[in-house]
Amino acid sequence: MTGGTFDKEYDEIRGELYFKDTHLPEMMRLGRCMLDLEIRTLMMIDSLEMTAEDRELIATNCARSPEQRIVITHGTDTMVDTARVLAERVAGKSIVLTGAMIPFAFGSSDGLFNLGSALSFVQVLPAGVYIAMNGQCFAWDNVRKNRESGRFEAER
Amino acid sequence: MTGGTFDKEYDEIRGELYFKDTHLPEMMRLGRCMLDLEIRTLMMIDSLEMTAEDRELIATNCARSPEQRIVITHGTDTMVDTARVLAERVAGKSIVLTGAMIPFAFGSSDGLFNLGSALSFVQVLPAGVYIAMNGQCFAWDNVRKNRESGRFEAER
Amino acid sequence: MTGGTFDKEYDEIRGELYFKDTHLPEMMRLGRCMLDLEIRTLMMIDSLEMTAEDRELIATNCARSPEQRIVITHGTDTMVDTARVLAERVAGKSIVLTGAMIPFAFGSSDGLFNLGSALSFVQVLPAGVYIAMNGQCFAWDNVRKNRESGRFEAER
Amino acid sequence: MTGGTFDKEYDEIRGELYFKDTHLPEMMRLGRCMLDLEIRTLMMIDSLEMTAEDRELIATNCARSPEQRIVITHGTDTMVDTARVLAERVAGKSIVLTGAMIPFAFGSSDGLFNLGSALSFVQVLPAGVYIAMNGQCFAWDNVRKNRESGRFEAER
Repeated sequence: MTGGTFDKEYDEIRGELYFKDTHLPEMMRLGRCMLDLEIRTLMMIDSLEMTAEDRELIATNCARSPEQRIVITHGTDTMVDTARVLAERVAGKSIVLTGAMIPFAFGSSDGLFNLGSALSFVQVLPAGVYIAMNGQCFAWDNVRKNRESGRFEAER
Repeated sequence: MTGGTFDKEYDEIRGELYFKDTHLPEMMRLGRCMLDLEIRTLMMIDSLEMTAEDRELIATNCARSPEQRIVITHGTDTMVDTARVLAERVAGKSIVLTGAMIPFAFGSSDGLFNLGSALSFVQVLPAGVYIAMNGQCFAWDNVRKNRESGRFEAER
Repeated sequence: MTGGTFDKEYDEIRGELYFKDTHLPEMMRLGRCMLDLEIRTLMMIDSLEMTAEDRELIATNCARSPEQRIVITHGTDTMVDTARVLAERVAGKSIVLTGAMIPFAFGSSDGLFNLGSALSFVQVLPAGVYIAMNGQCFAWDNVRKNRESGRFEAER
Repeated sequence: MTGGTFDKEYDEIRGELYFKDTHLPEMMRLGRCMLDLEIRTLMMIDSLEMTAEDRELIATNCARSPEQRIVITHGTDTMVDTARVLAERVAGKSIVLTGAMIPFAFGSSDGLFNLGSALSFVQVLPAGVYIAMNGQCFAWDNVRKNRESGRFEAER
């Protein structure tokens, strides 16, 4: 978990969006997910504020983890940048990044759909770095976020 | 679409559960799904009421469809039975059955998670018949529904 | 609390509606309700199954309660019958019955609206027995449930 | 309708909260509200940005309206200020202001509860200006918002 829209909450006192805790355990419960998972929260930030150091931290954790298959929840704005760093730094593992356009806490989120998608792709795809959004899976070097539509698409 | 808990609605006049229309288009919109899909409703029934003729109809539709990759939403109670019929009757296609334990209309359903999962597995798995539930994917001949826990599990 | 659609849950193992616990404390939290309330669950049943003894029990509890203002959550089908018994048996108190057409657990319920309505009417209305549904408040002897529309209406 | 948290939406492209349309008609439908209402949107703004001219506009509309009973949805931060202006400028009408701490669009809002409450209080209270929040009703000159708890309370 790294944060992103996925895990944004509404602060009713200040009327702002903020990060509290990850909703992942609740989402696993909702999805009746029976996969044997290890959940780790590395940071809880907006991906527009993610620094090179943050990406190093994610890459290092992926490389050192005993797991061969990893899903990363991430803000959509710079998800492609993090995927590139991971492709350069982590070898021999299947890594799928996913996120959400609408916070899970808002009730009508795409997050649960994307999580089901990412957890499924990661189980069957060969080693590599991918982005799972909009029901699709993109290789890290052939994807961009369309800022106007908010959708991910292949570059070529 | 064949119905199942997935698409059950609450009839507020009679206080009963019933089938109206499929929620699939709404779920695709929630999931911001950009896959190019052909959606067809074959029936809208409880899978406990599904007959051998109904399963024939599903198999025939899968066999005749021009699509190579097919997701079937189905009640969970007899999903395994339908998978067996499909494995006998349809060759050379990737078919993934999925369903839900909680109706989508109830707000906290596993349906959106399962749909994201099934649509992802079907894109990458080789020809065969599978069941995608609980974040996992099972081959048609190695899965059963545990009636007590409501979870799907491998038989061996 | 006496049950009713208000508190129906979906049993995901058996695919049926049933009663577990009341959702009232959760609804009070959602509504940020700061009223000083005493909550008591007398029964948790479908109002079609409510007997004369059940109505006696409700009336006795209302009469013996130290509270002057009482809200009763109740299935809508026989709410008018219970209101009549209360009007005969309990004097000098403001009693408002309310319910829901859609279970609270289903996410898009009228229950939260009706609860806010009933708790408000009960604070200002003079002693008497009333039904608060559909944003309106009816005297116990001038109300019926329209079985076709599912709405409550004045009889004259 | 004047806006406020009640009607805030999440802009999934920019990741911000904004105002689009009022959710009032949808809330009336959810609440199965059968009251004969005239709905008018005067503005759709955050109450922290409300000016003296905006409050004049609200007061003028209340005074000129043929209705004797009026509910105003309003941001909670300056609801008390608007109530004071209305008390000075509008006579002989029952006016109840209400709002929400959580946007209705977020699925677990207090808005539906508060709306049911405000619509009920306004039907029975004598002429005057009131604030309905947290299940309670306060006279305009004896209420403040506690900025720390986010709850409304009597001043004395």
